Amino acid sequence: MIEYRNLRVALLGGGSVGAQVARLLLEQADELANRVGAGLELVGIAVRDVDAPRTADLPRELFTTDAESLILGADVVIELMGGIEPARSHILLAISSGADVVTANKALLALHGPELFEAADQVGAQLNYEAAVAGAIPIIRPLRDSLAGDRVHRILGIVNGTTNFILDRMDTEGDTLEEALATATELGYAEADPTADIGGYDAAQKAAILASLAFHTTVPLASVHREGITSVTPQQIESARKAGYVVKLLAICERLTDATTGEEGVSARVYPAMVPRTHPLAAVHGANNAVFVEAEAAGSLMFYGAGAGGVETASAVLGDLVSLARRHVAGGPGFAASSHADLPILDIGVITTRYAVTLEVADEPGVLARIATVFSDHKVSLELVEQSLTPAQPEAGGAEGVPATATLVIGTHAAPERALAATVRDLAASTVVSNVASVIRIEGA
Amino acid sequence: MIEYRNLRVALLGGGSVGAQVARLLLEQADELANRVGAGLELVGIAVRDVDAPRTADLPRELFTTDAESLILGADVVIELMGGIEPARSHILLAISSGADVVTANKALLALHGPELFEAADQVGAQLNYEAAVAGAIPIIRPLRDSLAGDRVHRILGIVNGTTNFILDRMDTEGDTLEEALATATELGYAEADPTADIGGYDAAQKAAILASLAFHTTVPLASVHREGITSVTPQQIESARKAGYVVKLLAICERLTDATTGEEGVSARVYPAMVPRTHPLAAVHGANNAVFVEAEAAGSLMFYGAGAGGVETASAVLGDLVSLARRHVAGGPGFAASSHADLPILDIGVITTRYAVTLEVADEPGVLARIATVFSDHKVSLELVEQSLTPAQPEAGGAEGVPATATLVIGTHAAPERALAATVRDLAASTVVSNVASVIRIEGA
Repeated sequence: MIEYRNLRVALLGGGSVGAQVARLLLEQADELANRVGAGLELVGIAVRDVDAPRTADLPRELFTTDAESLILGADVVIELMGGIEPARSHILLAISSGADVVTANKALLALHGPELFEAADQVGAQLNYEAAVAGAIPIIRPLRDSLAGDRVHRILGIVNGTTNFILDRMDTEGDTLEEALATATELGYAEADPTADIGGYDAAQKAAILASLAFHTTVPLASVHREGITSVTPQQIESARKAGYVVKLLAICERLTDATTGEEGVSARVYPAMVPRTHPLAAVHGANNAVFVEAEAAGSLMFYGAGAGGVETASAVLGDLVSLARRHVAGGPGFAASSHADLPILDIGVITTRYAVTLEVADEPGVLARIATVFSDHKVSLELVEQSLTPAQPEAGGAEGVPATATLVIGTHAAPERALAATVRDLAASTVVSNVASVIRIEGA
Repeated sequence: MIEYRNLRVALLGGGSVGAQVARLLLEQADELANRVGAGLELVGIAVRDVDAPRTADLPRELFTTDAESLILGADVVIELMGGIEPARSHILLAISSGADVVTANKALLALHGPELFEAADQVGAQLNYEAAVAGAIPIIRPLRDSLAGDRVHRILGIVNGTTNFILDRMDTEGDTLEEALATATELGYAEADPTADIGGYDAAQKAAILASLAFHTTVPLASVHREGITSVTPQQIESARKAGYVVKLLAICERLTDATTGEEGVSARVYPAMVPRTHPLAAVHGANNAVFVEAEAAGSLMFYGAGAGGVETASAVLGDLVSLARRHVAGGPGFAASSHADLPILDIGVITTRYAVTLEVADEPGVLARIATVFSDHKVSLELVEQSLTPAQPEAGGAEGVPATATLVIGTHAAPERALAATVRDLAASTVVSNVASVIRIEGA
């Protein structure tokens, strides 16, 4: 085998992923060199504070606060700082100075992906980001390469471990959202400020990345419809369970046709949805991730594994590094993201799915007929109606004269989102409906 | 974008996969050209009989019986003929004439992989084979690239759809092996001669390919320990079910240390095994495939989908073609298989797993103690013993004087295969054991 000179690897960021990447690079140096055909020499780790504690025991002399000098002397730059700046400037500097780049920065890719891919494309640099979505699970490369000859119709992803942990606890332990979140925080599955996770922001970033890749179309983060899990109640979970469903926060990327205009386009969205318990995604427990892909020729595929964790994510980073280094040694350039299809991004109103609508209604004759009429006015057809009496509320006095109420759970057939929204608006205005208690979508059925 | 000349694609084989590949290449020509940056021109399909019926409507003028002329005029050769010869010679001709190659030929790769990879490596040709294992499921590329920076410890694969269909029917419908096989044949899941599937030969080929890739070591087909499903009985399935297990035919690739010699090596083997019903592999039903991978950093990953079928497998072939064509356009060479680690291949006797041993024994005092002694003589420790009385067999006369018998099911803790084999040999020779009815391994627990 021809011997190549070592590749100089600069690491930006010494957090939980960065420290594990550095440790594995040092510990497995010989093995990795054999796989690549050249050594991978870790030349430095740029951090804000060289004395901060690390999750791995690393030589102090590797650490520096001078990221720019480190970048300028590197063949490969691994960006694991997170956040937008200075990560974006550092990656652009690396590319312009001739280095290849590995990043796990989903926020940056979701916001500035096109700029970065364009910069890499200009100079033939490689930009790999397997770790940005679903941690250790290979999903970027399968979508980019393995399914490159197929047409992806739909992706249903559980791509946020924190919210899956919380929803799983609510389902299996009967916890409230607050209780499950407290447990997640205690076990290290949730950050001190859990907004990015439970608000669905993290999942929306991943949806933008997956949709862009799957549909060869730039899908800006701003176009991703996003709902978090904060409104999910134990009652919803319980009623989903009784009906044979489990509630999951899904990132959904779909290629579809606007039924009104006939326009073909794509949709990317994040919301909690009911998934049948028989669906492979229903078996994804704890903080695990899974991505379910429906493609024209390949049919249904699922990719499952750990969605986060320092060492797990480090595996994906190192896979990107070795692939890129092999190509570096072999001499070929990388491939920028493809956006040749450039499909329009459709509004959430266009997508069709099924819904479970829970209503509190007056318990009196004719109510069901009036409600059914509201649905049919908007051409939303019903699959199932379940009625249960609501016990009289003591605090409401339980007095005579207070009308008895009932709870209706209505399951619909597939209907456009905008028809459902109009239905809900009319239901809320109806005199027989005292409250639209919840609306939740049903996916994968 | 720079315009490149079309890539000339030659297809060898017009069977169920070949016909779908040709159809998709023609139907999606524009879309694929956009993804590659150059057209993929199907220049011909080499077949034995130009007039044979096809599963897709294809222009007659594409067909030829002259494979060699077709190969010599091609930039990329897709080999979907199957079998060893002339597939092997055709691929070598393609490589030596400067073409890149895509193949789905697992038998050929398992037997002659090193020769083909070496030939490709010599001239910098690409040789892709995603479709050779687990049909549409991306598993080759994740192992080769995504996990390239990690260390794979173990692979548990359901890689043969026919046997999974049969075992699933036996489990869910209570079918015998013969009944389930008849159904599989009727539904097109089994071939007229099902030996390759039910004998475990097909799975063994895939195990050799996966182990070679995962462990950077050439694992010859001959070194794969192979047991098919022909000895699996409804009783085993039923007793597995009662104990919370399901029987699956597994292809197992493992990196392990010989406890006696301390030698590190790899093992590749195929056998029916009991898998806990809580394991993700237990949920793989019908003719589906799944590959469960345990890696040092990434933890547990699972890849799931359709393991066979013309159009599904065509998806993997086209993914290989597009990846390779992109690289062809970009100018970089491919990567041959890596065998730098070159670990020794360990004998099946070295592997350790758990076992369920079913014995027919004399129903008399002291029997259990004598049997337990046989196990402990070989340092195989017991986890569980269940005894049930065997009803008197009418055909045995049920007469007085015939000793009553009982059935013992013994579950062991993990023990080396050779210790278990010695135990079984001694049990068979014991006067209190009338029959060692079955031995089945327990995996994934």
